Amino acid sequence: WRLLAASKLGRFAVKVADGVDVFPINYLAHNHELFFRSAPGSKLINLTREPSVAFEIDGEHAHHVWSVVVRGTAHRLASDHEIEESGIQSLETWHPSEKLNYVRIAPESVSGRSFAKSPLA
Amino acid sequence: WRLLAASKLGRFAVKVADGVDVFPINYLAHNHELFFRSAPGSKLINLTREPSVAFEIDGEHAHHVWSVVVRGTAHRLASDHEIEESGIQSLETWHPSEKLNYVRIAPESVSGRSFAKSPLA
Repeated sequence: WRLLAASKLGRFAVKVADGVDVFPINYLAHNHELFFRSAPGSKLINLTREPSVAFEIDGEHAHHVWSVVVRGTAHRLASDHEIEESGIQSLETWHPSEKLNYVRIAPESVSGRSFAKSPLA
Repeated sequence: WRLLAASKLGRFAVKVADGVDVFPINYLAHNHELFFRSAPGSKLINLTREPSVAFEIDGEHAHHVWSVVVRGTAHRLASDHEIEESGIQSLETWHPSEKLNYVRIAPESVSGRSFAKSPLA
């Protein structure tokens, strides 16, 4: 969670009709949950049908790559009350100035690992 | 493909029994296909059942994030002949010294995008 709190950009993997998709996304870690904002009609629209998601951040040291993967369930914050309760609006980077969707990931597992910079996965 | 050839580390998204998973992986881009190596018993074992995969690389410029996403089908290179034919062993970074599995991604779509470093996905 320390690494998750220190990053702003991760990759979000979701199920789609014909398989899986993965894309980079700005996020916030807050109270051991992850939050995303999304303009209406974006790829996050699939989450209602397929709420099981995975999220990844990584970074490099001299000889190693580290990563944190969060797997969990996506919930769209549907009401102003839920958005207020989450506290995400108080975080300085996000000042909603237009109608946006908020998505919260409730984590089911968080795993971290580190591996050598070699071609072996 | 220029960006894919210039990178070595990406994130690989796969379907698993209870949803999706995503993890960092070293890869090679060669002849407009992607190649991974994997020790036996790793997460790539799922690919036989769920060959639809997605792969992502990204990077940052001063004010923008770029990304390339490849969606396609994973094939395990089963025979020495296939491995030889692929040409991957001739690439200097990979000198197989033990028994390893090779996986090839045949791309169905390749998409690139760039977005501002803001919290809006």
